[in-house]
Amino acid sequence: QSVSAMKHSIIESKPCKRLVLYYHDILFNGTDVANATSARAANGTGLGNYQFGMLVVFNDPLTKDHHLLSPAVGRAQGFFFYDMKDDYTAWFAYTLVFNSSEHKGTLNIMGADLMYAETRDISVVGGTGDFFMARGICTFKTDTFQGANYFRLQMDIKLYEC
Amino acid sequence: QSVSAMKHSIIESKPCKRLVLYYHDILFNGTDVANATSARAANGTGLGNYQFGMLVVFNDPLTKDHHLLSPAVGRAQGFFFYDMKDDYTAWFAYTLVFNSSEHKGTLNIMGADLMYAETRDISVVGGTGDFFMARGICTFKTDTFQGANYFRLQMDIKLYEC
Amino acid sequence: QSVSAMKHSIIESKPCKRLVLYYHDILFNGTDVANATSARAANGTGLGNYQFGMLVVFNDPLTKDHHLLSPAVGRAQGFFFYDMKDDYTAWFAYTLVFNSSEHKGTLNIMGADLMYAETRDISVVGGTGDFFMARGICTFKTDTFQGANYFRLQMDIKLYEC
Repeated sequence: QSVSAMKHSIIESKPCKRLVLYYHDILFNGTDVANATSARAANGTGLGNYQFGMLVVFNDPLTKDHHLLSPAVGRAQGFFFYDMKDDYTAWFAYTLVFNSSEHKGTLNIMGADLMYAETRDISVVGGTGDFFMARGICTFKTDTFQGANYFRLQMDIKLYEC
Repeated sequence: QSVSAMKHSIIESKPCKRLVLYYHDILFNGTDVANATSARAANGTGLGNYQFGMLVVFNDPLTKDHHLLSPAVGRAQGFFFYDMKDDYTAWFAYTLVFNSSEHKGTLNIMGADLMYAETRDISVVGGTGDFFMARGICTFKTDTFQGANYFRLQMDIKLYEC
Repeated sequence: QSVSAMKHSIIESKPCKRLVLYYHDILFNGTDVANATSARAANGTGLGNYQFGMLVVFNDPLTKDHHLLSPAVGRAQGFFFYDMKDDYTAWFAYTLVFNSSEHKGTLNIMGADLMYAETRDISVVGGTGDFFMARGICTFKTDTFQGANYFRLQMDIKLYEC
């Protein structure tokens, strides 16, 4: 099928697939190898007081509810870094990896996490396996932030190409 | 609507939306916190003499003309690193963030900046808000390079899915 | 042409274009500038024993067969990092750069390299030049792993939007 440059009419409220997941990040403090799920690969740079340039690699569990100890339905593998000098904002790129009876495959995601906003949208740019050639939007919402070492995001994933 | 694997016939000269913006990058020198817009998160590696592996996190203003001090119409938040041992080339991934009366939303972009070429194309892989589910091409052109601490790129953004 | 949110019916076994390439990575050991094709921009973090957080920037030759010394038909420019604490997995983002009589242009690729699997799929999220607006899947297969300094991947690239 041949298509030319197109003004699509996808309706934002009607995804063809939707997944709501919770992402749990426990930053390595140097000794908690058993619990930690992420670690600092580069330190902040001193440009301002909000960890500008600090880069964190993560391999974080995904659960269906808020609880850290609920069964993981997948992992989020990737990185983020902080990128604002007078407040916290971050930039994420990662893969959701599923390998359960419910879903097998991956979703690849990237975009800016404008943490000052209550919700913020980033892009689902591709998928594999059950999510072969998917595209869509992932909406972040901060669920909790506990000091420097634990935070939890709600990720509301809406696919418009399935 | 159902489509099968497709040979599209999008016409490169006819985007459905086009934005030409200037990107201004002022690398933090350790003391100019007020002016700097980017900082080195990782140093060069010593593989060759062209800063191979040096990684820069940025949060750079975007203007409609060449002037650094023109009103910013958005920000570019992301990173680049140098990746060639016998010349300068770089690799970029970032988000254009718009929050004005004209545009609200983001565009997510990644690709190789082959700096030796006069112009080079990278991919717009997704968008949100006014740019919901967009895709396209961003063409880089170096506008100026002033020593190690300031450079300016023209970013000619052409969307073919709007 | 206007399309709404769609359940596509792309057939995974029938790409509109396919390229099988070999990727050769020689990690810089501090002295082999002439041979090395990649370098460590950030060291491992100590979270586990599998180089969690080690980030490698690469500019690697691509050949049509297994041989490192075969003529390069393109380059892969980008980065990967290790991201698992009790085994090796990695995360890649990079651009394939072609500039030959056969192909001119780029493909932009990202995703998780689940190294414990025999094959693993990542996403081709965009393209330029001969690959204008392409999307698809890149399947990794480890071809060889020789100590810490050389490995070779088969990259089987299947495009479904050409």
